[in-house]
Amino acid sequence: MRREAGLKEAALFTGHFGADPDKHGSREHQAMSRGVPIAKALEEHTLLVWAMNGEPLPFLHGGPLRLVVPGWPGSLSQKWLTRIWIRDREHDGPGMTGLSYRLPVRPLAPGSDGRGVELRILESMPVRSIVSAPADGARLPEGTRALAIRGAAWAGDDGVARVEVTLDGGATWTEASMTPPRNRYDWVRWQVSIPLPGDGSYEIFARATDTQGRAQPFHAANWNPNGYGCNVMHRVRVTVGPEA
Amino acid sequence: MRREAGLKEAALFTGHFGADPDKHGSREHQAMSRGVPIAKALEEHTLLVWAMNGEPLPFLHGGPLRLVVPGWPGSLSQKWLTRIWIRDREHDGPGMTGLSYRLPVRPLAPGSDGRGVELRILESMPVRSIVSAPADGARLPEGTRALAIRGAAWAGDDGVARVEVTLDGGATWTEASMTPPRNRYDWVRWQVSIPLPGDGSYEIFARATDTQGRAQPFHAANWNPNGYGCNVMHRVRVTVGPEA
Repeated sequence: MRREAGLKEAALFTGHFGADPDKHGSREHQAMSRGVPIAKALEEHTLLVWAMNGEPLPFLHGGPLRLVVPGWPGSLSQKWLTRIWIRDREHDGPGMTGLSYRLPVRPLAPGSDGRGVELRILESMPVRSIVSAPADGARLPEGTRALAIRGAAWAGDDGVARVEVTLDGGATWTEASMTPPRNRYDWVRWQVSIPLPGDGSYEIFARATDTQGRAQPFHAANWNPNGYGCNVMHRVRVTVGPEA
Repeated sequence: MRREAGLKEAALFTGHFGADPDKHGSREHQAMSRGVPIAKALEEHTLLVWAMNGEPLPFLHGGPLRLVVPGWPGSLSQKWLTRIWIRDREHDGPGMTGLSYRLPVRPLAPGSDGRGVELRILESMPVRSIVSAPADGARLPEGTRALAIRGAAWAGDDGVARVEVTLDGGATWTEASMTPPRNRYDWVRWQVSIPLPGDGSYEIFARATDTQGRAQPFHAANWNPNGYGCNVMHRVRVTVGPEA
């Protein structure tokens, strides 16, 4: 791959360019130009995509040509791709500097404006999960004595080691069963049935843990002015029986 | 004990009476009169106290005579005790009925006024812990590379199985060491030293788990109008090095 593209030893980073206009609808300035380290660009799941399900890639999905850079910020998956620049330094296009897609190296106090602090590029995204059923606000019949819950989880470049669910704010947890991912970046589907002690109002929290042992936090710890990388647990409230 | 006090088979509950005035400063009405099931009253750690450290019990601590009912709501440890009534039914003095020291049997939706819902008496208190050092808002010298943290934990009628501490909002946890309690209701003292990756702002959360496997929640799940039994984790923010 490296040889086919004629990459030189000095190749360190990519810079991606697309045909989309900037936020004012103008094409005079580059809207966004993000990039990744060469190793991530050459990873087998990083794709140049021109077709989907046997058809040309639709315009709304970024056709005729787009990037897919799985597990990293979505803004790297440049739509309507026109050019890839191979650079000998970290790319510094719009969206690569200042507070854009960057995290503080030292943990900031919440509310800091981030001025003057050392920042690093946001790479692999942290572990996350969602509850897809039941829906938030769902009402279940009186006497329901088990709550069937399902969802999905993913963990950037890492795998999902487990998903647990609590109905009591984290006092006790029940582990969900997971369907194996079909490839490194596939979402894991999970499901679990939890016995209910009785009718009432319950709040479901789902917590995924990655293969490096890092769980989703109950509280966003990596505060930053733009809110990147927030992976607090998803919560869904349900009522069993009449409203109390 | 049961025989010495001449308890009859029908004895089910205590009712405690004290000399303190009501909230208007009047002694015309009973201020508060709480009680416990006979089994808790006869438990060896439930005490009638008239002395402390070899001296008569000071007035401010409830002298000349008070109750100490450990692990249950503090309002049961009646000060300036004048009478114990042995009852053949659940005591119904001021502080025993309605929303007073009672919890909903079915979990309520937050914000419910609790009207018309079934309630039960609050008995053993849930597991809790506090961080006693460092203090909230503490500033540590630049270059500090380990955070020494200590505190206490207790769990009502149960024991404390473990205490864990997180600096990353619950993504990873470090188990603290504990000093063994000197009796069933003694507070457990705990301490831990956690390496720091660098300077910055950190939030400490401590989580105790009782001997029945119930941890402190990150979110109060047992919502009730008076806020009884809330045992969410204690949190303390510290800054290492200059403010960011």
